Amino acid sequence: MPHLTLEYTRNLSNFNPTRALAALNAAMFDSGLFSEPDIKSRAIGLETFLVGISPSPRGFAHVRIALLAGRSAEERKELADAVLAALIAAVDPQNRAEIQLSVETVDLDRPSYAKAVLNG
Amino acid sequence: MPHLTLEYTRNLSNFNPTRALAALNAAMFDSGLFSEPDIKSRAIGLETFLVGISPSPRGFAHVRIALLAGRSAEERKELADAVLAALIAAVDPQNRAEIQLSVETVDLDRPSYAKAVLNG
Amino acid sequence: MPHLTLEYTRNLSNFNPTRALAALNAAMFDSGLFSEPDIKSRAIGLETFLVGISPSPRGFAHVRIALLAGRSAEERKELADAVLAALIAAVDPQNRAEIQLSVETVDLDRPSYAKAVLNG
Repeated sequence: MPHLTLEYTRNLSNFNPTRALAALNAAMFDSGLFSEPDIKSRAIGLETFLVGISPSPRGFAHVRIALLAGRSAEERKELADAVLAALIAAVDPQNRAEIQLSVETVDLDRPSYAKAVLNG
Repeated sequence: MPHLTLEYTRNLSNFNPTRALAALNAAMFDSGLFSEPDIKSRAIGLETFLVGISPSPRGFAHVRIALLAGRSAEERKELADAVLAALIAAVDPQNRAEIQLSVETVDLDRPSYAKAVLNG
Repeated sequence: MPHLTLEYTRNLSNFNPTRALAALNAAMFDSGLFSEPDIKSRAIGLETFLVGISPSPRGFAHVRIALLAGRSAEERKELADAVLAALIAAVDPQNRAEIQLSVETVDLDRPSYAKAVLNG
């Protein structure tokens, strides 16, 4: 842990998911909560999506941070705010669609979490 | 919030994920629980999947609804049932495989949820 | 339920996600916790990913097992350990990158879980 997942709709203009992940991971690391190699992130581009029920131009990017249970509410809030700031900076402000950006944190069940490292 | 994710195996016959999302979002909106622009949905087609351990023709479609904590158990159950009904209607009853359909709801951690809107 | 999701970075050498799912589902079934047709699994290959903040060769594979609430902590731990063992066996030990392998279990909200089977 932690596991970070960035989802983004394919209608974001000039969005570079590789660069976005680098910025998000940097924000994760700068939080001081995690050791560097533990931060495992992926970006998933969404081809089929829908916001609401009307056909207006809309999109979104959403980050889910899964971390082992035990972090305080303050640590989670600060982390989410820092990652949101990095996400905002990674999105072109000139998008013609309305873009919703969001970050959630979720607890991983600590007792059952199992892990191994190959060639570590 | 809410975030809806529809996963479907690629062996569903005549399945139209864009149309399915429209029906699911309509069911979400008709629940009266959400404001229209907040409903953010995506569909993900699964190329690599396996049901059970035998090679019989099977598939599935699964909906995950993530919503901010605080909804009652009744509201969540009614919402899941309504979305399942919409999902059933979106699946061709003539599939030759056995298709499992399911809907889950999950709480988003409210204190750490962070959000911004660009060009809103 | 249960729903199993295997994510793997595309830099794993000689990784066969279809064969991996077969091994993971067998481990799930061998746990004795589930009936055979209920085990619904998918594999998702990650094209865009980043481990940490340095550009060293790294990858990961992560399994998320969602199961209906009510399993004991011991059952969840044993299940995660068995699935991790199957995952380790499915990964080429000759990978040149450092590969992190992990398994988490997560509870599905039982009261709102909705399900149907077509052509069952």
